[in-house]
Amino acid sequence: MKLFDGGRASNPRRVRIFLAEKGIEVPLETVDMAALGHRSERITALNPLQRLPVLELDDGTVLSESVAICRYFEELHPEPPLFGTGALGKALVEMWQRRVEFHLLFPVAQAFRHIHPAMKGWEVPQIAEWGEANKPKALEFLRLLDGALADRAFIAGDAFSIADITGLVSVELMKPARIAMPQDLDHLARWYHTVAARPSAGA
Amino acid sequence: MKLFDGGRASNPRRVRIFLAEKGIEVPLETVDMAALGHRSERITALNPLQRLPVLELDDGTVLSESVAICRYFEELHPEPPLFGTGALGKALVEMWQRRVEFHLLFPVAQAFRHIHPAMKGWEVPQIAEWGEANKPKALEFLRLLDGALADRAFIAGDAFSIADITGLVSVELMKPARIAMPQDLDHLARWYHTVAARPSAGA
Repeated sequence: MKLFDGGRASNPRRVRIFLAEKGIEVPLETVDMAALGHRSERITALNPLQRLPVLELDDGTVLSESVAICRYFEELHPEPPLFGTGALGKALVEMWQRRVEFHLLFPVAQAFRHIHPAMKGWEVPQIAEWGEANKPKALEFLRLLDGALADRAFIAGDAFSIADITGLVSVELMKPARIAMPQDLDHLARWYHTVAARPSAGA
Repeated sequence: MKLFDGGRASNPRRVRIFLAEKGIEVPLETVDMAALGHRSERITALNPLQRLPVLELDDGTVLSESVAICRYFEELHPEPPLFGTGALGKALVEMWQRRVEFHLLFPVAQAFRHIHPAMKGWEVPQIAEWGEANKPKALEFLRLLDGALADRAFIAGDAFSIADITGLVSVELMKPARIAMPQDLDHLARWYHTVAARPSAGA
């Protein structure tokens, strides 16, 4: 198999962190997204949506969507579980993963894509008003997340999960999206430092 | 347990269709979203994000996010499987579910929320330009989906899955979002009529 990786972008990074947490090594081919390599004929043939990462299996089957790729590896290598355990545990990871995706990663990404000058050819049309409208949404969710983290170590409970990986890349996307982290969110700050210090964060 | 249901909206409907496909009956309490019941003190206490549906378990644990609620029931009642089977099957359902959510349900919902006059108090600020920018995104994905359906019965393969439920509610949201279905997508039309004719679609 081969993972077509996209370097620094949030979604490729989510999958690399996930693999590092699992201790799984997959052959990587890095595609230069800054040079729009994800829109090349080769990648378009694998994923017509022109997004990375893409996992190509030995029989030619192609998986796109970061979380689908992660779930594939979770099924093949269940330990350590990163999608939760038991019916309720799995549902709580799914809930928090989606809350973080829709109420943090998504609005931060919209602010980045619709305001940052480097994203002009990526997001057409760039609508600055929409980018700005997403900033308070992200900040509101950070406050809710801070409250949730008051009584537990990780986003979905006492165990590290894929929701923490999504949270980490979301918080780190705030810088290029030019959203300042509020300084009074102590639980979130403690969580961030713990998660960012894991070896997997360097992946 | 009790499911706080939101009536006609797409997400509450996804969960009701899922339960109907599983043959599971759950006590429902319908919240009047037109009267902004999802922003009431009672619902906010259950889900601070003020979204429906919400599942309250007997021990007081609360699950929000439609797909998290569905996954909970999938784990408790695996038959018929609606999240796929085997590592690759589960990954393919996850991939198509996410493709449909991010490239169809999401843009159709954005067009609806940012353009429809009835959504003025729901989406603040309403940005018509952003709503309009989403219409071609949805149409482009419908064309890709039509191609994918050329050689299989359902969105993620030969078996009905949660990706078909998401697809169904997305296509039906196109009407209030005022996006006309292209008339030349024959595979998509065949799929839609098959899925809309299942008894669960009336849920």
